[in-house]
Amino acid sequence: MTPAAHAHDHSHDDHSHHHHEHPLPTGIYLISPSGAVADPASIDLARVRLGELGFKTTVDRAALLVHERFAGTDKQRLAGIARALKQKHPIVMATRGGYGLSRLLPFIDWQAVADSGKSFIGQSDFTAFSLALLAKTGAVSYAGPTAVYDFGAKKMDDLTADLFGECMRHELEVLSFESPDSDPVDARGILWGGNLAMVASLVGTPYMPNIDGGILFLEDVAEHPFRIERMLTQLWHAGILARQGAIVLGRFTDYRLASHDNGFDLPAVIAWLRATVKVPVITGLPYGHVRVKATLPIGSQIGIATEDGMAHLVLQEHF
Amino acid sequence: MTPAAHAHDHSHDDHSHHHHEHPLPTGIYLISPSGAVADPASIDLARVRLGELGFKTTVDRAALLVHERFAGTDKQRLAGIARALKQKHPIVMATRGGYGLSRLLPFIDWQAVADSGKSFIGQSDFTAFSLALLAKTGAVSYAGPTAVYDFGAKKMDDLTADLFGECMRHELEVLSFESPDSDPVDARGILWGGNLAMVASLVGTPYMPNIDGGILFLEDVAEHPFRIERMLTQLWHAGILARQGAIVLGRFTDYRLASHDNGFDLPAVIAWLRATVKVPVITGLPYGHVRVKATLPIGSQIGIATEDGMAHLVLQEHF
Repeated sequence: MTPAAHAHDHSHDDHSHHHHEHPLPTGIYLISPSGAVADPASIDLARVRLGELGFKTTVDRAALLVHERFAGTDKQRLAGIARALKQKHPIVMATRGGYGLSRLLPFIDWQAVADSGKSFIGQSDFTAFSLALLAKTGAVSYAGPTAVYDFGAKKMDDLTADLFGECMRHELEVLSFESPDSDPVDARGILWGGNLAMVASLVGTPYMPNIDGGILFLEDVAEHPFRIERMLTQLWHAGILARQGAIVLGRFTDYRLASHDNGFDLPAVIAWLRATVKVPVITGLPYGHVRVKATLPIGSQIGIATEDGMAHLVLQEHF
Repeated sequence: MTPAAHAHDHSHDDHSHHHHEHPLPTGIYLISPSGAVADPASIDLARVRLGELGFKTTVDRAALLVHERFAGTDKQRLAGIARALKQKHPIVMATRGGYGLSRLLPFIDWQAVADSGKSFIGQSDFTAFSLALLAKTGAVSYAGPTAVYDFGAKKMDDLTADLFGECMRHELEVLSFESPDSDPVDARGILWGGNLAMVASLVGTPYMPNIDGGILFLEDVAEHPFRIERMLTQLWHAGILARQGAIVLGRFTDYRLASHDNGFDLPAVIAWLRATVKVPVITGLPYGHVRVKATLPIGSQIGIATEDGMAHLVLQEHF
């Protein structure tokens, strides 16, 4: 089941990157818009690791607050987001996911987020931020590693770190991964999606991007396949799936089957999806609540193709 | 926490019911549109119990089928629904909930369901059926007990059985229950809702009723308060909560808090709901995945009022 992620790093080819004249983004501002950081030492470790990768870091003064299960009250978390727009670092990373962004969405100044030009990155609950930003402004943000779960983990995954660095430096042109049972596809469209539960929770709200011909990627954790299917069904009934150019499935992990599932499992859900929606389904994306994860630009125009058991996401093209 | 349900049965008052000239509904047709029935003996027991209450029963020939976790394939379950429209009994009861109706919704002839004049009743997953029927046709159906969980339970709850019988015979005029911390309200509107996860799963789809000034009732089981809040947030963001005349909370049961919830619990969610949405919130509705449950007419115009720590749902009025 473990997909191999291949970063096609063309940094040896100077010609590929002559058009990126802005300075390399080398500073990261850490905020906590969702769940409380349980262990501040993980943030310290993340800063050391990010430093080794060439990134300076600053921790927002509210990032370690605790209120109930949240990293501070709603007001405190919103203030952290607002401060992130005004500080100097070009990258803003969520320390972790959890739960907490949903109820903040109406109180975030999305145009100010877009105008800041910052690269926001997070995962899981952060899907709500990325999709709301895309829906309200069209601006790009990133699904990828976070301080607590990735850079602050006891053992950091090197490929995850490399992919993050290359993506932030705009060096990553193609992300290739094993995808043996994927449908044939050769398409271009806007990459969007993230955590399925968060995507589904935005259906019918002003924070749901209205994307035609998109490349929709999805992952989730600790959701039984019947819940995964029910969430996909919501996207189907809402007319969202049929309008996409491709559905790219990341990792769905940590669910527990019951004896009465009686053969119903994730493969049954994927078979149902393929039979129900006439859109190419691509499996094996190295993304989800797993150690090896790509950094993915949500809202960016990309290409996707499958060939010989491999899938390729073309993140940057030279037109 | 256990609310007391009081059925105000005015059947001793003959004048109240002179306008109900149709024959009393005394037959129930059992179908399984969702999960497989694990123990067929529970259906036998339910039939005995329903017989004692004066209801003849017939079991659809697909009601005991098993396919994966479902009561038969999609086709078999759809055929059971179709047969239910053509048989003689006026009441059609789902044997149980589970998961399975979501993906059937586009393939059900909703106008035929409405035209059948049958009283459909179910709970949990059946919320998808009731809301889709209401959205597509405006027809009334019922949230209430099912064969497996209630009438087929080792110990049947007498109040649940009485409320079901009275509701089916159109004898129940007012449902009153203890509701000590409820907001003041005196309103009329369409009663709708059911299982929160199912309600949320229909947002943004053609199967979501578009109800203004409604009386929205909600319950759920085994959903952590943060998920309950996230689902309520979806309804809030979609503009649905603000348009209701009242939000009536049934029982939210069988969830497990974690140490990092740190004080975040259902009361925090209800406090957030009250602070966020300027709609009266009424608690204590005897409905949910619990033994004592009312039978509630989804899509029916009702009244609601609170007074002296009690809430009253006026199910039938004489105009």
